[in-house]
Amino acid sequence: MRNLKEGDTNMGVSKFGLGRNFLARAEHDSDIIDFVTDFAKENGVMTAIFTAIGALKYAKLGFYDQEGHEYLETSLSSPQEIASCLGNVSIREAKPFVHAHAVLVDSKGNTNAGHLLEGKVFAAEIHIFELVGKTVVRKNDTVTGLFLWDI
Amino acid sequence: MRNLKEGDTNMGVSKFGLGRNFLARAEHDSDIIDFVTDFAKENGVMTAIFTAIGALKYAKLGFYDQEGHEYLETSLSSPQEIASCLGNVSIREAKPFVHAHAVLVDSKGNTNAGHLLEGKVFAAEIHIFELVGKTVVRKNDTVTGLFLWDI
Amino acid sequence: MRNLKEGDTNMGVSKFGLGRNFLARAEHDSDIIDFVTDFAKENGVMTAIFTAIGALKYAKLGFYDQEGHEYLETSLSSPQEIASCLGNVSIREAKPFVHAHAVLVDSKGNTNAGHLLEGKVFAAEIHIFELVGKTVVRKNDTVTGLFLWDI
Repeated sequence: MRNLKEGDTNMGVSKFGLGRNFLARAEHDSDIIDFVTDFAKENGVMTAIFTAIGALKYAKLGFYDQEGHEYLETSLSSPQEIASCLGNVSIREAKPFVHAHAVLVDSKGNTNAGHLLEGKVFAAEIHIFELVGKTVVRKNDTVTGLFLWDI
Repeated sequence: MRNLKEGDTNMGVSKFGLGRNFLARAEHDSDIIDFVTDFAKENGVMTAIFTAIGALKYAKLGFYDQEGHEYLETSLSSPQEIASCLGNVSIREAKPFVHAHAVLVDSKGNTNAGHLLEGKVFAAEIHIFELVGKTVVRKNDTVTGLFLWDI
Repeated sequence: MRNLKEGDTNMGVSKFGLGRNFLARAEHDSDIIDFVTDFAKENGVMTAIFTAIGALKYAKLGFYDQEGHEYLETSLSSPQEIASCLGNVSIREAKPFVHAHAVLVDSKGNTNAGHLLEGKVFAAEIHIFELVGKTVVRKNDTVTGLFLWDI
């Protein structure tokens, strides 16, 4: 991994330059994943990382079954604080694709966490940090069954 | 949202340039929210995002009641690891204002999460990333009852 | 803390310039802490912050006993989603050292969180953001018993 230059790839690591930075107030009643996906598509954001805090009206989380290679889904029908949301944008099937994980908490203090599949926005503050360089494409990985970065 | 330029605003998104970066060792026994707020005020940080990890002696978390439009507060009187803290700095009532969410965990492994209202620092490592551009002002939003970014 | 310049230190805060940015697909079956540590060593990354999402085959978390000044460790032998991982790289005993906290969740939805001591990678996407400036060295702090940043 030594002496990586911008765009170089070696052992699953790529180097990037710094792109545009955005703060977003996600639209009330939008889906947070769709919001970031649409923003990336409309602004030509190919690669980015993002963070979000706020609250959701309801959400759907996934847990990936490492043996069965399928997502177990949990729907949370009650309001949730977004205690944390970390995600990224890369390219899948030639389009910007959002991958995000979140930690949510309900009014009783029960914490729920995992892969954020859906989240209806009550209010959300998002920081999107574009990275520029090699295009990061997701390809099917036979070991995990996941679409992982081909870097 | 297409073709956003620095300082442009459209549909709740603003573009920013990259400002100063700081690492901070928050003072033992300080309040972590006050620490970041005071740092921002003293260094003229108007807009920033930050992350923190570490531990708190005790903390107060909030959950926003989306129907009642008020915060339900939970005081945690025992030591907590800061498993995650994501926050931002913007302007409210003409002063830098900190908004932070956290995931905490106690000695028994119980996870607590939400809006971080107070946190007495045992030790904390904070990364503050200033963003420069349009001033981001919080204004009361009638739909949610929250002071949201007017962008 | 006013008027901090790059490399200046005052009250536990240092200012940094922006260094290299990397996205990494952590190697399947590697240890995530070792992966980031080795990457930092091999690429001369002295100071950095990083985030990660993905999944682990198993993990070990720590909770620091603020009275007894020792880590209580919990081994998680089942698969876990990395709902959040926030960490940093600084220098301890003359070498790059990784400090990371994580929020994990198992297939039953039970959330586990704390200091991430070990984590066997199923799949993980990591963003490493190098900071350049003053070398940040960890030194033993007698108040907490921890090796804290000497800034």
